[in-house]
Amino acid sequence: MRTQVGIVGGGPAGLLLSHLLHLRGIESVVLERRSREELESEIRAGVLEQGTMDLLNEIGVGERMMREGAFHRGVNLQFGGRRHRIDFEDLVGRGIMLYGQHEVVKDLIAARLASGGKIVFEAQVLAVEGADTDSPSVRYAGPDGREEALSCDFVAGCDGFHGACRPSIPEGARREYERRYPFGWFGILVRAPRSSEELIYCLHERGFALISTRSPEIQRMYLQCDPDDDVANWPDERVWEELHARLAMEDGWRLKEGPILQKGIVAMRSFVCEPMRYGRLFLAGDAAHIVPPTGAKGMNLAVADVRVLCEALAEFYASGRAELLDAYSERCLRRVWKAQRFSWWMTSMLHRFHGEDEFRYRLQVAELDYVTGSRAASTSLAENYTGLPLE
Amino acid sequence: MRTQVGIVGGGPAGLLLSHLLHLRGIESVVLERRSREELESEIRAGVLEQGTMDLLNEIGVGERMMREGAFHRGVNLQFGGRRHRIDFEDLVGRGIMLYGQHEVVKDLIAARLASGGKIVFEAQVLAVEGADTDSPSVRYAGPDGREEALSCDFVAGCDGFHGACRPSIPEGARREYERRYPFGWFGILVRAPRSSEELIYCLHERGFALISTRSPEIQRMYLQCDPDDDVANWPDERVWEELHARLAMEDGWRLKEGPILQKGIVAMRSFVCEPMRYGRLFLAGDAAHIVPPTGAKGMNLAVADVRVLCEALAEFYASGRAELLDAYSERCLRRVWKAQRFSWWMTSMLHRFHGEDEFRYRLQVAELDYVTGSRAASTSLAENYTGLPLE
Repeated sequence: MRTQVGIVGGGPAGLLLSHLLHLRGIESVVLERRSREELESEIRAGVLEQGTMDLLNEIGVGERMMREGAFHRGVNLQFGGRRHRIDFEDLVGRGIMLYGQHEVVKDLIAARLASGGKIVFEAQVLAVEGADTDSPSVRYAGPDGREEALSCDFVAGCDGFHGACRPSIPEGARREYERRYPFGWFGILVRAPRSSEELIYCLHERGFALISTRSPEIQRMYLQCDPDDDVANWPDERVWEELHARLAMEDGWRLKEGPILQKGIVAMRSFVCEPMRYGRLFLAGDAAHIVPPTGAKGMNLAVADVRVLCEALAEFYASGRAELLDAYSERCLRRVWKAQRFSWWMTSMLHRFHGEDEFRYRLQVAELDYVTGSRAASTSLAENYTGLPLE
Repeated sequence: MRTQVGIVGGGPAGLLLSHLLHLRGIESVVLERRSREELESEIRAGVLEQGTMDLLNEIGVGERMMREGAFHRGVNLQFGGRRHRIDFEDLVGRGIMLYGQHEVVKDLIAARLASGGKIVFEAQVLAVEGADTDSPSVRYAGPDGREEALSCDFVAGCDGFHGACRPSIPEGARREYERRYPFGWFGILVRAPRSSEELIYCLHERGFALISTRSPEIQRMYLQCDPDDDVANWPDERVWEELHARLAMEDGWRLKEGPILQKGIVAMRSFVCEPMRYGRLFLAGDAAHIVPPTGAKGMNLAVADVRVLCEALAEFYASGRAELLDAYSERCLRRVWKAQRFSWWMTSMLHRFHGEDEFRYRLQVAELDYVTGSRAASTSLAENYTGLPLE
């Protein structure tokens, strides 16, 4: 099989890139490891920056998002039993859209297939070959187990942190930066009415908690936990006890309970691979960088990467000029590092570092006191949360 | 001897408090360990927040400062061989005054003595007694070595980190928070023209550097070093080599050299004692809190403390009401913790943590890239550097 751009990975990055290229008249094929059903049901992030939302609308895949998603004009920071609202609309004139990543994936798959786009599901990518030549190819095992090759002009590695693309870059040609955090998030999906119109990020002596929402009926809540903990150690009563304790308010506000539909623990990591390119292989999204979820940046960074990549490929196909392709990695990484900074900062401010000195915890409380009290600092948080401009 | 307010320590905090009380008609005596000559020649910090400068002018001790000090409307942040100006005036409509702490001390001593104020130099304070009663006293050895007692209504502990006042508070009645940093500052005083109109804070792979100024002829420069290093390991050539390497600019700008008049190493520490009061003993300035010098907050915090204390004492003497005295510690500490946060943040962003992962250094560079590129983040830096409002 042959195409112009071989895209490894059918998550938001790969699918969006494929659709963006299609709109510029460039052909691509998406190879995805999972089945369509698996892909469409995997619950992941759910916060879209204003710019991500705008892009999905511009390219005609935002209709269901605008109908079913929830646009938020601010978030809450809670500490010391008090809640403080960061008013995004007032501070930066932007907001965020709450809409599950798997819903974005569904909309993109539908759009790709409706335009005759080619997605190979259950395709196990084995290696990217010839990335340092003008005719790279992707070797993969198809749904029937037979080995196949996808020949192309360029390969986009959108296959996530554990995908095959990044390891295809020789070790001497990439540098990796990593930070692990001494905690994870225990997440639950609950059938209950909303406890709060907008998200609540809470720092408490017992640890971080986050109240988010999927819909008026389904809520998402998180608790800081040991990253090596076992879900079995968290019977429902313990989960509620801990959530109530961390989210207790001076004014008597109380979290609304309901049946817990799902439980899970995620570890937290910061990771960057530099450069994001090797010859004709371009990494995008989680394949190149991971952020802890506190800043809600993961999917948004992937979207920013593929916007930049699509522009560069379009320039190449239109004019033969490679300047934008050559600038791809640097342009993305500058934004990636700023998002890393923001995600690390939000994570460090809002989680309890139990092993460390009390001075650190007091600094965190002082930081929250300062951020919620200073218009400049609130604006800084708001501009990062709703999305820094694509430079 | 008897007075209304016994003040231990004749640094900026103690002398300013004495003068502020005098202006409200309240009597005080200052007990100072050093001789007047020692006190007036000790080189310390030299950056006054706009509010500190304004206060000195309001109370009539700012004349020489306005003549000899240098008002700066911004500072520079340098990284990656480029310099970025943070324009305080544009961002927050305020600035900073560069004027040595020992010059402030000289002006305050002169003002106190001119108004008949009492300062006992070379008085070694031994203990504060009866702080939990209505008639505390300060036991001290006078210049002649004879033990004396100063009876008073209140004691102000302005005697610095190593002073006798804080240890007079029973251990169970105070809590201390501390953070030490794995580096110190190697400082030099140089006879040379100014290399830059405004301060330069520089992050380099080899470590932090700071260019400051005392006068058109005398410059102050600092280099991050090992806190346990010895001045003898730093011959002049090594100092200049290191300064040139860290401050190298893409545009070829070059630091101006000159004879080095003084060398020294200071360790860096963050420290807070809570509460800042025990009965009728009130701590102010370094006796209660220490900040690393990167944020230039030390003397300014001391000034803010004694402003709050003077107001509270004046209210007590005028009306007998103790509400402001009771609120003293909490009111000061909220500001102290914000200054601790700022000082820790500036320190963490601008120094090289050599033992840690490369991820940290890249985050620091990303932070500088963000701070210098975002108006909101620049404003946040500017409002802290020029001084948060007294709440």
